[in-house]
This record gives sequence, C-alpha cells and structure tokens, in this order.
Amino acid sequence: MYIETINSPEDVKKLTIEELPALAEEMRHALLTRASRHGGHFGPNFGMVEATIAMHYVFESPKDKIVYDVSHQSYPHKMLTGRKDAYLYEEHYDDVSGYTNPHESEHDFFTIGHTSTSVSLACGLAKARDLKGEDGNVIAVIGDGSLSGGEALEGIDYAAELGGNLIIVVNDNDMSIAENHGGLYQNLKLLRETNGTAPCNLFKAMGLDYIYVNQGNDTKALVEAFQKVKNSSQPVVVHINTLKGKGYEPAEQNKEQWHFSGPFDLETGKPLYTSNTEDYAGITRDYLLKKMKEDSRVVAITSGTPAVMGFTEDKRKEAGRQFIDVGIAEETAVALASGIAANGGKPVYGVYSTFVQRTFDQIAQDLCINNSPATIVTFWGSVYGMNDVTHLGFQDIPMMANIPNLVYLAPTTKEEYLAMLDWSVEQNSYPVAIKVPGGELISDGKTVTKDFGKLNTYEVIQKGSKVAVIGLGAFYSLGEKAAELIAEKTGVQPTLVNPYYITGLDEALLDDLKKDHEIVVTLEDGILDGGFGEKIARYYGASDMKVLNVGLKKEFLDRYDVQEVLEKNHLNAEQIAADVEAILK
Amino acid sequence: MYIETINSPEDVKKLTIEELPALAEEMRHALLTRASRHGGHFGPNFGMVEATIAMHYVFESPKDKIVYDVSHQSYPHKMLTGRKDAYLYEEHYDDVSGYTNPHESEHDFFTIGHTSTSVSLACGLAKARDLKGEDGNVIAVIGDGSLSGGEALEGIDYAAELGGNLIIVVNDNDMSIAENHGGLYQNLKLLRETNGTAPCNLFKAMGLDYIYVNQGNDTKALVEAFQKVKNSSQPVVVHINTLKGKGYEPAEQNKEQWHFSGPFDLETGKPLYTSNTEDYAGITRDYLLKKMKEDSRVVAITSGTPAVMGFTEDKRKEAGRQFIDVGIAEETAVALASGIAANGGKPVYGVYSTFVQRTFDQIAQDLCINNSPATIVTFWGSVYGMNDVTHLGFQDIPMMANIPNLVYLAPTTKEEYLAMLDWSVEQNSYPVAIKVPGGELISDGKTVTKDFGKLNTYEVIQKGSKVAVIGLGAFYSLGEKAAELIAEKTGVQPTLVNPYYITGLDEALLDDLKKDHEIVVTLEDGILDGGFGEKIARYYGASDMKVLNVGLKKEFLDRYDVQEVLEKNHLNAEQIAADVEAILK
Repeated sequence: MYIETINSPEDVKKLTIEELPALAEEMRHALLTRASRHGGHFGPNFGMVEATIAMHYVFESPKDKIVYDVSHQSYPHKMLTGRKDAYLYEEHYDDVSGYTNPHESEHDFFTIGHTSTSVSLACGLAKARDLKGEDGNVIAVIGDGSLSGGEALEGIDYAAELGGNLIIVVNDNDMSIAENHGGLYQNLKLLRETNGTAPCNLFKAMGLDYIYVNQGNDTKALVEAFQKVKNSSQPVVVHINTLKGKGYEPAEQNKEQWHFSGPFDLETGKPLYTSNTEDYAGITRDYLLKKMKEDSRVVAITSGTPAVMGFTEDKRKEAGRQFIDVGIAEETAVALASGIAANGGKPVYGVYSTFVQRTFDQIAQDLCINNSPATIVTFWGSVYGMNDVTHLGFQDIPMMANIPNLVYLAPTTKEEYLAMLDWSVEQNSYPVAIKVPGGELISDGKTVTKDFGKLNTYEVIQKGSKVAVIGLGAFYSLGEKAAELIAEKTGVQPTLVNPYYITGLDEALLDDLKKDHEIVVTLEDGILDGGFGEKIARYYGASDMKVLNVGLKKEFLDRYDVQEVLEKNHLNAEQIAADVEAILK
Repeated sequence: MYIETINSPEDVKKLTIEELPALAEEMRHALLTRASRHGGHFGPNFGMVEATIAMHYVFESPKDKIVYDVSHQSYPHKMLTGRKDAYLYEEHYDDVSGYTNPHESEHDFFTIGHTSTSVSLACGLAKARDLKGEDGNVIAVIGDGSLSGGEALEGIDYAAELGGNLIIVVNDNDMSIAENHGGLYQNLKLLRETNGTAPCNLFKAMGLDYIYVNQGNDTKALVEAFQKVKNSSQPVVVHINTLKGKGYEPAEQNKEQWHFSGPFDLETGKPLYTSNTEDYAGITRDYLLKKMKEDSRVVAITSGTPAVMGFTEDKRKEAGRQFIDVGIAEETAVALASGIAANGGKPVYGVYSTFVQRTFDQIAQDLCINNSPATIVTFWGSVYGMNDVTHLGFQDIPMMANIPNLVYLAPTTKEEYLAMLDWSVEQNSYPVAIKVPGGELISDGKTVTKDFGKLNTYEVIQKGSKVAVIGLGAFYSLGEKAAELIAEKTGVQPTLVNPYYITGLDEALLDDLKKDHEIVVTLEDGILDGGFGEKIARYYGASDMKVLNVGLKKEFLDRYDVQEVLEKNHLNAEQIAADVEAILK
C-alpha cells in the first residue's frame, strides 16, 4: 500500500502523478473503515481526498502553509502529514483530534473548529511572511458552505488588498451541512455551469484572480491547477468542483445525513447505534410546527444547522416559508430575528451555544438595544455538550447574561422549557434567550403555571434553613442531590431554589434568605467567571451571608472526560456537601 | 422657505419635482449652520440630502420602511419626518439623537449606531411583512464603507434568497470614515466608471437585481430610479454615486476630516475648539511609529477607524506597509492579528471599546484558543467615553475578561500603559488586551519596572488596615480619593491596591488581606455584572471578608450625563467613603 509509506508530504512527492489516484483510493478506504467504526465528519473529508493529495504534491508544507476552514475536512491532510496511523489502525483512532491542531503537527497552524475563519487567518500568516521578508505560499482551503459567514466574506474582501501570495482554494460541493443558502450560491452554480468563464464572478468582483477546476476529484487536474498558482505574486482563488461524500454511495446520495456520522454498518450505511429517547431538538420542532400552524407569524430560524432544532428535510418542507435557513450567517440570523419581531412576527432562532458567540454584537445592538421580542434558544450549552476545544458549550452565560435588556432563562425540565418557549413566543416586551438544559432530558410531567413575565422571580421549591442551594438550569437536579446529602450528613435541611432567570436577581427572595440562612450555594453548568453565581456573591458581598459559587473554571478544555472535569471542579453532590459542611463548621 | 412647511413626508410630496433642489439647498444650509455650532456627523449627511428627499418623495413612510445603516446619515431623514426644528433652531438642536430612534418618530424603525446591520434588519422587516400577508416597500440604505462588514455581506447574500420586495440603496461616496479598503471597492469603481454596466458586478454575483444612478445628488434622477424599483417583487440594489460632504468645499476636499466635526468657523472651516493636550491616541501612535522603525515585524491594525490610534493620513504613510486598515471588518482584524502573531509578527489592533464586541468569536476562537501573542488595545472603554446608547464603552469587561487565555490589562497612567504595550509587543506567550483608561490622561512620570509576564500579580501601593480599596484602571485614582476620605472620616487608613490584571486574581495577595482587613472595596469603570469586582466577591464568598463592588449598573444609557450616572451608581469618593463607613459600623 502507498499510504503505509507516507510519513510526511515529502513521501507524497516521491510518487508519480499516475500513482496518486491509487493513494486516494487507499485513503478513502481507510477513512470509510474508520468512520464506520469511530464516527466523525464524513462527507467533507471524502470530497477533499484528491485536493489534499494534490496540495501536498505541489506545495512544500510546512514552509508553504495550508489553513483549513472549520478543519473538519482535514483528515486527509493529517494522513499525509505523519498521522496516518490514526486513520489506519483502530487502536490509534483517538490519537488525533477531529480538527487541525498545532500541538499535533508542524503542518497545522491553527486550532480551528468554527467556520469562515481561514481566509482572514491565512491573510495574517501571509502578512507576517511579507513583513519578515520571507517567501512561501499561504493557502486557505474554504468550503462553499463557509463562504456565507461574515468573517469569510470580510476576509475575501480584504485579501485582494493584502497583495502578495495568497491562494484561496474554494472547495465547492454545492452543500453546507444541509443545502446551501444565499444568493452567492447562484453565482457558484453559474461558474460551475460555465466552466468558470461567466463574466459575473463573485471572486473577481471582490478583486481576486480566479481559476476554475471542474474535476475537483481528479488529482492530475488539481496538481496542474496548483502548479499554475504556486508562487503567485497576488491573491488568487482556485475554485474546485468536488463531490461531497465521494466514494461511498449512501453519502453521495444523502449528503446532509452523511456530513457527520456515528459508527455505521459498511454494507447498509445504517447507524450501529440509534436512540429513540426524546430530546430537546425534537420537542422544540414539534412545538414550533404546531405553533406555526396556529399562527402564521411564527417562524423558526437556523444559521446552517437545521438539526439543532430537529428540522430534517421533511420537517423543513412541512414548515414551508415559516422555516428560514440563512446559511452560516449567525449575525444575519439575529438581526433578521430582531427585524421580524420589530414588525410583528414571532421568530425563534435556535443555535448551538458554541456558535451563538458569533453574534454578540447583533444580540447587543440589533436585538437588545431595540428590545425586540425575539426568542433565541441556545442548545448544548453545557459541560455535557460537545467537548472539542473549539465547540465548548459552557461559556455562554458570561457572554449573554451580562447584556442589558436580555432575559436569559434556564429551565430545569422539559415542561419548564416548553412553558418558557411558549411564553416567549407570545410576549411582546423583551428579547428572550432560553438555555436548553444539558445532560439527559428530565420530564416530571408537572404543569408549569408560572408567569415568566414577572421578571427575576425565583422560586423556593423546598423550604429549609441555614443552607440555601440555588441550582440553575441543568444543575438544579445536582442541587437537589447535594441538598439531600447535606441533610443526611449535617441534619440541616437546606432550602432549595430554582432561579429560572440567569440575567437578574430576585432581591426580595435573597433578602428573605438572610433571616434564617448562613450559606447560599449557587450551582451553574458553565464557567464561574462572569457567570450567574458571581452576581449572587456580589449581592451578598457586604452582608454576613456566606456564598459558595460552584461551577466550572474559566479555561479551554479539549476532548475532556465529563466526570473528570466535574470532579476537578467539585461538581458532584458529595463534594458540594463536603464543601458546605466545611463552611458550616 | 420650503423646509419650514415640511412636517411629514406627505409635505415633501406636495412639492413639484422642480422644487426639490431648492429644498435640498435649504436643508444643506441648515445642516451646515447646525454643524458649525453643534458638531456631529457631517460628510455622510451632506451626501445624502437629495437621496433622502427622493425616497420620501417616492415611498410612503412609515408604511414603506426605510432602515439607515449606522444611521449617522439620517439627519435629512429626520428633517423630513417631523423633526426639522432640531435642525433649524439652535434651542432645539439637542431634541434629537444623532441616530435613528423609534422613540422619536414612527418613521424610525431601529436604534442603530454600529455599521453593516441595515440589510439584515430590513430583511427581517420584509419577512414579517410577508408572513403577515401585508405589502409595502422595505428599503435599506447602506453606505459603501459599511459594505465590507461581515453582517452586511451576510445580509446581502441572504437578501437574494428572501424573495419579495426589498430595496437596497447603496450610497457610494467612495469613502469610509477614511478611504475605503478591500477588493470590493474596485468593483464599485468599475461600476461607477461603466455607468453600472460592467458584467462583473458584486451585487449580481450575490444574486440581486441592480440599477445604477450616476447622479446620486440629483433629485430628479433619484426620483426616477426609486419610482422604477418601487413595489419591486424581488430584492434590488440601487447603487447611487454621491459626493461625501457635498455643498461645503472644505468637506468635499477633505472627506476624512469632515466625516464628523465639532463646532467650526463657517468661513474658514477651522474648528472653534482645539485641544493640544496629550491623549492616548497620540502616545499610542508615537510609540508604534518608533517601534516600527526598530522592528519590521511590528504592525498596527485598524478596522476603518485609524484615528483611534492617532494615525492620520500622513502618519499612515509614514508607517507604510506596517499600518493596515482592513476597512470596517473587525472580525478579520482580529483573525489577521492572530495569523500575524502566529507567524512571528507583532500586531497591535487598536479598536474602540464599543466595536470590539463585533469580534467576540474571533477573540475567543482565532486568537485565544490559539494563544497567539497579538495585542488588542481598547480605547474609550469608559463611562467617560461616547455616550450614545449604541456606542457605550462600559461593557467590555464582561465581554472580554471572561474569555480563557486572554490577559486583559488595566493601566492607571500613561506610564503604565506604555510599559504594558511594550511588554505585550515583545512577549510571545499570551494574547493580550489593554484597556486604555477613560477620562483625562494621567501621567505621573514614574518609571514602571513591573514584569507583566508574572500574571495576576497585584500591587499594594499603600499599606493600611481594615479596609482595602482595589481600584481598577481609570478608577484607581477614584480609589485614592475614596481612601483619603475614609481615613479622614473614620481614622482607618485603607490599603490601596492597583490590580493591573482584569482577567485573573492575585490569590496570595487577597489571602494576605484577610489577616488585617475586614472590607475589600473594588472599583471598576464598567458594569458590575460579569465584571472584575464580582470575581473578588466570589473569591471571598465563603470567608468573613466583606466585599463592596462599586461600578455601573447593567443597563443601556443614552446621551447620559457622566456626573449623574456616577452619582446614581454611588461612584464618587464621598459616596464610596460613606458606604464603607456604613459597613464598618
């Protein structure tokens, strides 16, 4: 096998150009086998095998620097840069991350996981090269789906002005995670249909040189194209037409489903593990579809990840014009929601916690200054969420909860969540965000009658004394357990509070606790810095009340073990009980 | 005079098309007189007089809805929508804000002050219209300078897919605040030179219809163009070629200087008030220019506001390729800085506090996860900064200080600032941000020898007992005054601490204070929620130490009086001393 001989890009260059397709087949076979057993990003990598080989055949990495956008398509790159074992041998599958990673290899320049960043980052590498008077190529590889993101368009616009060598490889597979959205994709289509010759050309209109490669999965055509632009003295776009999921029939046929996959049966393509448990995506979708039928003003918005709210293709069709996918364009998603709400519509924008931070300014300016009654639902904002360093879900509280006017709610159960969502959709007074609880969905069947319009009203669920446990959102149940243990160990029955509101304090309730409590414990599923608990600590700062804030440390974690992290942060019930006991003494 | 008869857009429609130029002249005269006495955004409004008249002549506001990007060019709109007195009569000059404002008029739909938001917001208005089955035009007015911002490009891309009526008026005056930057401006130039006929057309490449108006300051041509697109059933761009500052020779000649002006002499154009006092912009520029000469890797970056660091046109020329203006593209600015730093350059990105929030995700992902040793300097991040609701400077601490890996520093004097800046430029270990102090520049002439690489080491400036005052950045001097008063009133000489670091705690020092202190007071020039003081409150939460966090309330303020706000938040030395005294008792 060729692949077994490849320990660095130098080894790729030893092959003849005729041998490259065989290498591609071997790599694709390894990717398929690994994916079927281990799962991971599928479609993006299958489309990029040939282009990656061709880049390493033509360019001199790491002197020439390749920056992969999102970098979930960097598996072939890793295979060719000394990390093939992680793709060939099951026992090494976990040796590498799913994204580029400078800690793994000198051929990786950034840890990247969010989209649309590659061109601007590559501009930086190129600028530093020029300031230092060095040479070498800088290559940004960006998928068509990422092009719609603001940072990507800004970067492409700036690239023209940068001057000097910069090569932007646009990997056009005519798909984002789901289908592409936005006007620019019409232009990509036109360019594909005219073999790159149409005079109306987005990249040229942005001031860049441009070449087109119709056979984006043909190593020879790609090698020729890259040789043509190598050492170019000005920024140039290489637009390559690839097939997402290429080489595996089910993935070629159903590109959206095969963007990312869990382990699956190679023969049938069917997943090995399926789950029929109820989840927040599904109940959100069901709620919204029902609501849409009752009220034509209700509209669901996604920025390129319709699955976040369970909107599969058939459900999107069912919603019709009441479902909007703006493509990867979080900023526009929030501004759009604000505009819809300002004009009497009822928008619900569903977004992963890790991506909501891509639209901070729009939440503050477009939404909250204007007090538009739109709803944002943040999913997977939890220590139980995605655990790659680029996709952490435990940092959204400091990001969102300190923006004036925003009402950020933390339900603890399915029932509370749906009640909050319905209240938010129906009200006209506030911009509202709802933090979907992480971990397993808890349903207690209780009817929620609370009026969430009475802002910042916490609720005492269990009256006790001496110790009060305020358990926010997903960690309310942890608070319950801790309270039980505290009662067992100390004989003190703690008061248990569900605060509901992340963004404000129930001062009356907090004052009331002073009467017969000595310690208030806050629990939150997120970092402590800038979070919910600190607001309580500040409130009690000058009083005799002791406050113990329990939550996560402010740090970037990568591929962490949840239990380890919880324990390290004293976030299990035993530790909390022990910490409280120590203060009580 | 015509203008005196205009109380609503209905009155504009009563004029004949031949009378409109006279109205324009009157409006321009009023604008000029007001600007010379009152100051404000100048160039943007002078260029838009005719287009605004033409829009109100053709469209039916408020049923037809006009959304102004940045909205600092909305003065003519205000004059035609019932607010003319604020432009005609000096005693009413302050009746209106400098931006669109729904609280002022039913003809304003959003409070807008940041750039690049109009198209996405307008898409929202249009979508709600369509969901409700209504009709009417939605018009976004966006300046060419705003086009480079990510949200604008996202919005234009999405607009094509929106369907239905949407009119995007591109006000092309070939200028941002300074000259435009980015490749797309080559395309605008090409379109101007070809009277809009060039086949390579950015807007068409984004999927939009397009018409061009060469005489963008000719009411007749504009009226005709708007009549053509009125009730269009799909999104269309109207590209109008205008002259920034039109009608006032000095402003036409020096567009950058006349983007915004203070009061000035009408004859000469010279400002009535000048200041020769040293400021942070100037010392930053002088430091950087010197450093650039010593080290070719040093590079200053701005996103469309070179004045933030004092880089006037001549100074930009002096810096040459070591000064980068990416145009309005904050996301790209931070990613670029990260890329430059990752490849051995020494970037310093200077940005107003209110705009740094436009790049939250890039600070977290592109910069901090990668730990790139770039420097961000935030200016005017203070209660003493800009005071329009869209430009507040007291919210950046919660936004930035809770991002892992970032070292956010708060100098209290010029000398500390320059020492921190120099340390940051020279080090290779951390992404660093420096918060330029608000208020008057304080220079004490002291040599700063502190090694800022020893992270989170606070300094006791004056040792006392019982009470410790931790004064962050600009509010350190307030802490000094408060400490003096406390000593006077109570006989207790407080300890005075300069914390330097916003992003971390000096736990050893805080523990040490427990020995002989009962109260720790924190002072910060920003909102308390998610801020610096709360971290101290949390740290001491379970101890006997009392903590008093002093700072601003989390709220949107508009055109506020600094002293009133300080007083309301107990932020003068007397109030602080009294509050401490009350706790001591």
